Amino acid sequence: MVDLSACDRVWINATLATQSIDSTEPYGVLNDALIGVREGRITHIESMSNLDVEALQGLDVQDVQGRWITPGLIDAHTHLVYSGSRAKEFEMRLQGATYEEIAKAGGGILSSVQHTRAASFEQLLTESVPRLQALMAEGVTCVEIKSGYGLDLETELKLLRVARHLAQLFPVRISTTLLAAHALPPEYKDRSDAYIDFICDELLPLAVAEGLVDAVDVFCESIGFSAAQSERLFQAANRYGLGIHIHAEQLSQQHGAALAARYGAWSADHLEWLDEEGVEAMKAAKTQATLLPGAFYFLRETRLPPIDLLRTHQVPMVVATDLNPGTSPFASLRLAMNMACTLFRLTPEEALAGVTRHAASALGMGESLGQLRPGFLADFVVWDVQHPADLAYQCGVRAVYQRIFNGEISHA
Amino acid sequence: MVDLSACDRVWINATLATQSIDSTEPYGVLNDALIGVREGRITHIESMSNLDVEALQGLDVQDVQGRWITPGLIDAHTHLVYSGSRAKEFEMRLQGATYEEIAKAGGGILSSVQHTRAASFEQLLTESVPRLQALMAEGVTCVEIKSGYGLDLETELKLLRVARHLAQLFPVRISTTLLAAHALPPEYKDRSDAYIDFICDELLPLAVAEGLVDAVDVFCESIGFSAAQSERLFQAANRYGLGIHIHAEQLSQQHGAALAARYGAWSADHLEWLDEEGVEAMKAAKTQATLLPGAFYFLRETRLPPIDLLRTHQVPMVVATDLNPGTSPFASLRLAMNMACTLFRLTPEEALAGVTRHAASALGMGESLGQLRPGFLADFVVWDVQHPADLAYQCGVRAVYQRIFNGEISHA
Ligand SMILES: [Zn+2]
Ligand SMILES: [Zn+2]
Repeated sequence: MVDLSACDRVWINATLATQSIDSTEPYGVLNDALIGVREGRITHIESMSNLDVEALQGLDVQDVQGRWITPGLIDAHTHLVYSGSRAKEFEMRLQGATYEEIAKAGGGILSSVQHTRAASFEQLLTESVPRLQALMAEGVTCVEIKSGYGLDLETELKLLRVARHLAQLFPVRISTTLLAAHALPPEYKDRSDAYIDFICDELLPLAVAEGLVDAVDVFCESIGFSAAQSERLFQAANRYGLGIHIHAEQLSQQHGAALAARYGAWSADHLEWLDEEGVEAMKAAKTQATLLPGAFYFLRETRLPPIDLLRTHQVPMVVATDLNPGTSPFASLRLAMNMACTLFRLTPEEALAGVTRHAASALGMGESLGQLRPGFLADFVVWDVQHPADLAYQCGVRAVYQRIFNGEISHA
Repeated sequence: MVDLSACDRVWINATLATQSIDSTEPYGVLNDALIGVREGRITHIESMSNLDVEALQGLDVQDVQGRWITPGLIDAHTHLVYSGSRAKEFEMRLQGATYEEIAKAGGGILSSVQHTRAASFEQLLTESVPRLQALMAEGVTCVEIKSGYGLDLETELKLLRVARHLAQLFPVRISTTLLAAHALPPEYKDRSDAYIDFICDELLPLAVAEGLVDAVDVFCESIGFSAAQSERLFQAANRYGLGIHIHAEQLSQQHGAALAARYGAWSADHLEWLDEEGVEAMKAAKTQATLLPGAFYFLRETRLPPIDLLRTHQVPMVVATDLNPGTSPFASLRLAMNMACTLFRLTPEEALAGVTRHAASALGMGESLGQLRPGFLADFVVWDVQHPADLAYQCGVRAVYQRIFNGEISHA
């Protein structure tokens, strides 16, 4: 019989989609089970049949009456902190404006940079909170947030400070990423190498010293930064022991994913143009493949990421929102899951693994987050759904019965 | 100067997207304006410059500080009341199951029929409420709801009763539609004409007598009901003075839209295969073209509705969710607006007209709903957005500042 006496709280009569790598069941299902937690960690995952009901005496017991419990959802790729809407640009494009006309009217990523530079810390916080709350309301307990709309010392640090501060305000884990190499700032026109120098030698050391940064990212693309420039960022990341992400092979094949994998990247993201060599390099380095179907949809792309190759080589697939004002203005991880299934033909089970277990690995937290396992952090969600496949199938309807962060029931 | 003394409530310092047919401005914009309401109707739409501030003395004044106000959103095509999830079927399809295998496993529309027939009134209500609440939370104040998962006398009436009851429980208008001709029930196998007899001669008269039905609808399709059968339903609808909707030209060209138009239909819906003759017939009859991009997306269709033809002939385009368990499990009208823009290339202005002014016409309420005009019903939304284009551009983030139904501020 199981001894729960040391638990702070126990959830009983649950159907668990554990996502545990030790399970051979779809979704890692464990029927008729309980979860015990203590000091923010899961201590017990047990079958109810191992329970002597007297063991519950005096405990804080949550009877979920057969409901499904999954690990808390993780959105492993967002640009959630920025200022200014790009709706007018969306409208101009649909009215037939060319990219030049939009750029002339002040649109494009530099419009976000301009608004973000002009915004105070408080203003950025105020604009970001509803985006974060939208994700949390869907059962998200961990969010990666990238900088990248500042492109100067002061604003990039400000963005990371806002991201860190959100974790103080709300029951959510935030993983921060320095994406100063998101676009070339106007101040460095025709001097992209000098901008990389600035990031590696000035910005990154300050961000590290202030404890603002968990990982480094780069937009490695013909219209972004080169593979050689990306490599210098990865070397800097390795020097500081930071994680590595890369925006790779979205619009063309730059072999950025394979390069990042050689530097032990946590994830390579987008990947529509990824080839088998890249897939193999990612497999060898245990780099996750982060799929961003929201951007694929919004940009009306037609070239799919190589899902079958990723499956064949067993590269873990992550699904994330890419929440950003220019190419994926969607604050819904469940919509991203649906799009991953509908547009990329992932199964609902793959989509759920992509926002739990694999997403945790994409943030360097695969050993402590994203599975319902003893020893793991007690972030999980009790759902009002009939089956975990519902999480990828339906959008819009509220399905969270209880959201648990660090072992505490949160109503945020 | 404007005399507001008879108003129950006044909203001041507003930016109005009136959607008024009298306006020549995009969105019907009126800057720096006020709305006065009395007994559930709009009495005043005025420029603030016509206001003597003393006229506000003693009134219930809502200062919205420059925020945008639009008419309440209208979802003019839903199948919102049903029982049972079809997530497992979604999963089977993505796992590679054929349609036969899914049908054998009890999937397809008849699975919804089976669950819906087995569900009590209370059970149906309980399952439907979160779907309605999801729509309302986005600023929806009027929803069309179709029957069609009962396909027998008792259950079809039960579905309509649930739909009517929702309007008692929540501050929302419900327009009900009898869609008994949604699919052929197993009891009428090979006897589809007899089923149409049953609808016209037994079901419809009872539904009318009980005051349950505002309109009649039919799935006019090679795999549904024929044009001749549809016509009998329209004749019955005309006899009872009911509105007419039609599911037409979704998967093939049956000329259903033109037929429905000849019977004065409020709307023809889906329309991927609509031709110019059909467009002209709709124009002549003032039939709205209801676009359902959620189903287009979910079914991965590739043939677009003839948007340019509809524009050329000035047939009003409506945008709706088609919320249903089989082909559009999305309880988000703003997502439908985004898909209308992203997939069908509507402008955000067209999308907003499609969920306000034109949607009202599609429910036979074009003279009293869907525009901010004196005399119209006082259903409107105060938004926390920078521009009305935001409503089609972004999804997920809560943007409703205040939702007004019948002149009352509602927090549902
Ligand atoms: Zn991104
Ligand atoms: Zn429909």
